[in-house]
Amino acid sequence: METVRLPRVMQDTAIKERCRGKSIGLVPTMGALHDGHMALIRAAREENDIAVVSIFVNPTQFAAGEDFEKYPRDIGGDVEKIRELADVLFLPDVSALYPEGHSTSVDVEGLSGLMCGAFRPGHFRGVATVVLKLFNIIQPTRAYFGLKDYQQTAVVRRLVKDLHLPVDVVLCPTVREADGLAMSSRNAYLAPEERKAAPVLYRALAAGADAIKQGEKNASRVREIMREVLAREPLVKEVDYISAYDPETLQELENVEKSGVLLAGGVKIGAARLIDNLVFNGLQ
Amino acid sequence: METVRLPRVMQDTAIKERCRGKSIGLVPTMGALHDGHMALIRAAREENDIAVVSIFVNPTQFAAGEDFEKYPRDIGGDVEKIRELADVLFLPDVSALYPEGHSTSVDVEGLSGLMCGAFRPGHFRGVATVVLKLFNIIQPTRAYFGLKDYQQTAVVRRLVKDLHLPVDVVLCPTVREADGLAMSSRNAYLAPEERKAAPVLYRALAAGADAIKQGEKNASRVREIMREVLAREPLVKEVDYISAYDPETLQELENVEKSGVLLAGGVKIGAARLIDNLVFNGLQ
Repeated sequence: METVRLPRVMQDTAIKERCRGKSIGLVPTMGALHDGHMALIRAAREENDIAVVSIFVNPTQFAAGEDFEKYPRDIGGDVEKIRELADVLFLPDVSALYPEGHSTSVDVEGLSGLMCGAFRPGHFRGVATVVLKLFNIIQPTRAYFGLKDYQQTAVVRRLVKDLHLPVDVVLCPTVREADGLAMSSRNAYLAPEERKAAPVLYRALAAGADAIKQGEKNASRVREIMREVLAREPLVKEVDYISAYDPETLQELENVEKSGVLLAGGVKIGAARLIDNLVFNGLQ
Repeated sequence: METVRLPRVMQDTAIKERCRGKSIGLVPTMGALHDGHMALIRAAREENDIAVVSIFVNPTQFAAGEDFEKYPRDIGGDVEKIRELADVLFLPDVSALYPEGHSTSVDVEGLSGLMCGAFRPGHFRGVATVVLKLFNIIQPTRAYFGLKDYQQTAVVRRLVKDLHLPVDVVLCPTVREADGLAMSSRNAYLAPEERKAAPVLYRALAAGADAIKQGEKNASRVREIMREVLAREPLVKEVDYISAYDPETLQELENVEKSGVLLAGGVKIGAARLIDNLVFNGLQ
């Protein structure tokens, strides 16, 4: 595995390889890699000639007061995990991706203000901006995202379509711990008791999904069922949101249909803000 | 010359040609082509294997109440002018560049709110968004812009740098009528008397430039000199702005230096809003 730090070097290499007919699979990450990332990287490796992993803790996607400074970083451990799998590690400095005088941002309106976006102002603008930069620099044939960050995947798919980017966005299933907790770098923030409580979010979503499978069509009833599960866990400090949404527009639903429903929630447990979702639309 | 309407066809062709080692020169226009455009197209033809002209009257760069509906359109005449010069005319429909559910926009903050931006809310967001789309679709090696739209060139250069776009932005001198009026598709709005009055904007900028050449360093004095010239022409209905600016940041200057000054103005004469500029920084 080669490590590349400079955008210009990465871009020149990528354009050269693409023109030689090689496909490039990109897995954009913020590091602190877990099995969810590893599944994306294996998919990128299997489906492309060249697998590129980017590690960049993107400052612009952290809202004011969020955990940018203490976001888990473990470059040494990450390199160990991916060195046999990835061909290139793209590891830019902040000043390389946001040069002096930087003032361009990309906004996917509508999608960005809903769900997590309502609680993380500017978050998806930062995501869209950095993803576009990475696509321009790495020129991927395919880019791999985990469905655990469902809203992010919706924003990226819309970005790609609206800006006519020649990239296939590949979505991979959420990878879970044995007790159902969705894998996330932020799970590292959980104290042992909180870690034991954390799968409650998955259980709440699963209870909503069960109700739908059993024929429940009233979205507010599904919402109540999920909130009741969360309410039984005292370590849930705050429920930012949990509801049934349209998987494309992310608008909250009044009536649910098995063929197209996103159940998603965001909660605070201890110092961690956890998100998770289950989607019924053929994607998962 | 081949006419291509579909973004996907244009993009596939462009990627294929680029990978065959061919360079692509793009001249993005809104049509109603004049000698200023023609100079850009000749430059694109001379410096590249393939010259692409795009014609697209971009709705998102017109502010509310502006002249989108009556903006001059003359596809037949445009095709006659460029058929021997351009290799490809890219002529997309609005629905092809802004598909249903479109919600992505690109903002170059700072630069976009100044000068013309203060009078045309959202204009440069629309420009940046459509230029990015065109770059993604046409994959140009070089893109050609006229210095008459100086602020636009500053926004595009910043966009290219911030988003790491592999495009060379080439700036070409303003082409003028014999009496000094900068060529513009909007000059067609001028009634005969207004047309005779219109070079006053150029004369005002030239008077400011003369004062600087003669050693004037006080920007407000230069501004006064330019405003006095405009004030002597009764057909100037409104002066949106006219001043001395930093050519990079577009911030209004207090002290002028010959080595780096942009003199720029925007005025209304009859139904036309005219802009022009002179820049001293080695670019012109």
